[in-house]
This record gives sequence, structure tokens and C-alpha cells, in this order.
Amino acid sequence: MRIARFSIDGNVAFGVVEGDVEAAKAGTAEGGPVLDIIKGHPFAEFERSGQKVPLDKVRLLPPVLPNKVVAVGRNYAEHAAELGNAVPEAPFAFFKPSTSVIGPGDAIAYPSFSSEVHHEAELAVVIGRMCREVPRERVKDVILGYTCANDVTARDVQKREKQWARAKGFDTSCPLGPWVETELDPADLGIMCTVNGEQRQLGRTGEMIHSIEDLIVNLTEAMTLLPGDVVLTGTPAGVGPLNVGDEVAVTIEGIGTLTNKVIKRG
Amino acid sequence: MRIARFSIDGNVAFGVVEGDVEAAKAGTAEGGPVLDIIKGHPFAEFERSGQKVPLDKVRLLPPVLPNKVVAVGRNYAEHAAELGNAVPEAPFAFFKPSTSVIGPGDAIAYPSFSSEVHHEAELAVVIGRMCREVPRERVKDVILGYTCANDVTARDVQKREKQWARAKGFDTSCPLGPWVETELDPADLGIMCTVNGEQRQLGRTGEMIHSIEDLIVNLTEAMTLLPGDVVLTGTPAGVGPLNVGDEVAVTIEGIGTLTNKVIKRG
Repeated sequence: MRIARFSIDGNVAFGVVEGDVEAAKAGTAEGGPVLDIIKGHPFAEFERSGQKVPLDKVRLLPPVLPNKVVAVGRNYAEHAAELGNAVPEAPFAFFKPSTSVIGPGDAIAYPSFSSEVHHEAELAVVIGRMCREVPRERVKDVILGYTCANDVTARDVQKREKQWARAKGFDTSCPLGPWVETELDPADLGIMCTVNGEQRQLGRTGEMIHSIEDLIVNLTEAMTLLPGDVVLTGTPAGVGPLNVGDEVAVTIEGIGTLTNKVIKRG
Repeated sequence: MRIARFSIDGNVAFGVVEGDVEAAKAGTAEGGPVLDIIKGHPFAEFERSGQKVPLDKVRLLPPVLPNKVVAVGRNYAEHAAELGNAVPEAPFAFFKPSTSVIGPGDAIAYPSFSSEVHHEAELAVVIGRMCREVPRERVKDVILGYTCANDVTARDVQKREKQWARAKGFDTSCPLGPWVETELDPADLGIMCTVNGEQRQLGRTGEMIHSIEDLIVNLTEAMTLLPGDVVLTGTPAGVGPLNVGDEVAVTIEGIGTLTNKVIKRG
């Protein structure tokens, strides 16, 4: 099931995506996909209202509003190598704040303090319930689903500053979307990043050094995760620059595509 | 003015502290200090309700519930030196998540994954209004006031892990309080940390390498700060271990004392 968050007539709602989005894009579907509006929110059992709106008539929002986004570094060996870094034995993590989150179609505003902003396509895990010290075998129970993320990074600032709050936490540096896919085996999904239609990153989630189970165990050993919190699982090789005017798209097999334009920060 | 956040009869409220807290502690005041309950919240103009409750009859909560806590590293030269680090030319920042925040009197739960947890007494700046790209001369306008913080740190984990999400972001690692002092010149305040009554850290905010103005300009160049967000300004020399059973107290001149016990994580 795909759950999107969207605004319609000034209201914010969650809805279940119905219909074949890929076929609609390809022009081979009869009738476009719709959103069946959810009563309440998707972090508990919910009912569909039966009230349906065409997907192309709404503005999609970030599929969740995370209290925090926790991201892990160097979780794909080839990416670690491309930046000249060793693969860490244990995962290490950093935060991206809620103020960095934007949705599909929103603009990435090129920050004034950087001249080297990079894309990093990542599989994002959306947490479904409050949890701490999650045992390995219970990890699946705390996950609501998966979405696409772009861990946009001011690479020059990241190199200069020992901790990455500014380099990876600036406004608009965390595009998420287009929706949360709740029925998906994340073990080995294709993950791709294109810039202006040209392929830049290509990998498979099966190449992760630390699995999603490992990451959730490691993080919740230290901190409580809340419903809607997001865990970014690292980026495959191929990171590279974004420039004002670029359109960057993260596609993950079984989820969909998250597209954002890069604009000058106004 | 001192603004506290507290719970009374199951409700959460803000109140203005009236009376001489220090004199009351010393036993030299007639009648104890009281909280005059605020109508609404302190992030806009507010009225006092005139409904007063004795300070010693309520449970103080963290004085704000930050969306994010942004902390700067190595902002006192002597502290940088004591850990064998150079003073950075530009400030660098990291996040502590909202899930790490506790209030005065709350317990610091010693995390299972560390055997070297340190106290770090810090002056905390509480943001009063949403802001971004704040010019130096407007910094005072975005600050609601100041409180005490303890940037509790798993030092062994911090040394092992390149980014500090776990080392400085674990649950209970961010005690804040006891209240927000809104009328205070933060330029040169005494800051002290004691453990079981014994002095460990002693410094003055005047020793900061990067001033509060510099820090707010630097951070808001990158990110939006929200009302209730907190900026930690670095710790003076004297950091050291905390053990289960310890009582750690951060005292800042003109603000008050933030006291927390260390317990075994249950």
C-alpha cells in the first residue's frame, strides 16, 4: 500500500494511492491514479473514507513530518571509496532536522554558504511506532514503510566542518517522497539518481554494509524513535554536484520517483 | 523575568517566577517564590493570569520543548585543549534531538552502550521567534532568553564514532532548565558544574571563542530556527565522568541551577 500526504483546498490529509502510477505516466492506463482519503492518520489502524481525489489534482507533501531524521554515513562501500573514506566497522549517525524536510516537487534552495552541493539518493525507512532498544527480530514491527530520500549535502562545508549540522542540515536539504510504500521487501531494491534525466547514481540496497535491522538496533540502543521519524540508510556510489536549474530525481524500485528542482536561495 | 514550564494537576503551563528563589533556598525570604500562570505561551505578548502557585508545589518541566537543539563544539579554548583538540577557526555544530531533552530534577539514564559519560555545563540560548539569515544586529530580537544546559556526552562513543548522533543524542542527554531568564546580558556570566557538590567545571561565558551573535548568524545562514529551539554555546574546561548515583548541577550566574541525578538506564 502506498500512503501519500497531500494538501487539498487548504487541508492536509493522508490518502492511499490507488491505480497504476507507472502505467498512468506511460499513458497506458485507463483513468489516472486516485488518492482514497484516510480517516485520521496512518500510524494506527485506519479506515479509508472512500472519498477519492485524482492524484494529479493535489499537491503532494513530504509523506511524513519527522520529528527527527537520523542518517547513517558510509553504508555503501563504493561510495565510501569514491570520497576516499574507509568503511567504518560500526555504523555512525548524524541528524537532519525537521526544518530541512521538503516534499516531492518542492525546490532545493542552493545555500549561500556552499559552492559544492551534492545529491545523495537514499532509501528512507519511515518509523511507525514509538520505540527504543528494539530487538533485531522486532525491527519489522516498528517500520511503517519506505520512501525515497535525497540527503542533499554541501560537500565543501562537510569537508571543512567536523560535525555536519550545517553541511547536511540546511533548509531544503532533505527531500522525502513521493509516498510511503508499506508492503515492500527492502532487502535488494534498485536505487537510482538522475540529474536532468542523466543517470548519476546506481546501486542496490543489497549492497548496504549495515542492514536496516542493524541500523535500527544500533540507533534505538541510544535513542527513542517516534512515529514519523525517518532513518536514511546511506547512499550508493555516484554522488556529484547539483547546480541551480537542475532537476534531480531519486527512483527506488517498488516505491517510485522523488523529483526536485534546484533553485537559487531567495 | 524568569519563565518556567511546569505540570500541575496533570496540566502543562508556563508561569512567571516571582519572589527571590536564592533567598528562599537560603531560608532568608519570607514566603516562598510563586509561579504566576501565563495565559497562553511566552512566544508572543502574553498576560499573567494572576493565578499563583507555590514554586515548591509544582513539577518543573524542560522550560521549552525544542524542535531541535543545535550545539557548537569547542567554543572554549581551555576545554578544546583538555581533550587535545585544536580550536576551530569557524564554529561547527551538531544536533541533539528533542527526544534527548529532560527537565530539572529529571534523571539522566546512563546508557548501556557507554562506560564513559561526561557532563558539559553550557549556556543555552532559547529562540523566541522563527528566523533565518539573521543579521548580527538583529540577533537579540530572535532570542527569548537563556537557561542552563548539560550537554551530556558518551565520551568513549564520541571518540569512536565520526558523527555524534549516538554519543550526544541518546535519551536524557540534554537536561535543560530550570527556567528561561529573559532579562540578562549573557556576555560574561559565571558558569559552574558540580558533581555531588564538588566543583568540576568553572568558567565565564566571556571566554567563548565565537560569541552568541556569531553563532546565531552562522547557524541561521543555513537553517531556520523555530520558537523554542535551543542553541548550546559550548562548555568550559573541567569536563569529567558521571557515575550512576551522582547528582550533577549546572549553575549559571543570573539564571539559577539545573540539577539532575544519574540513574541506571532501566
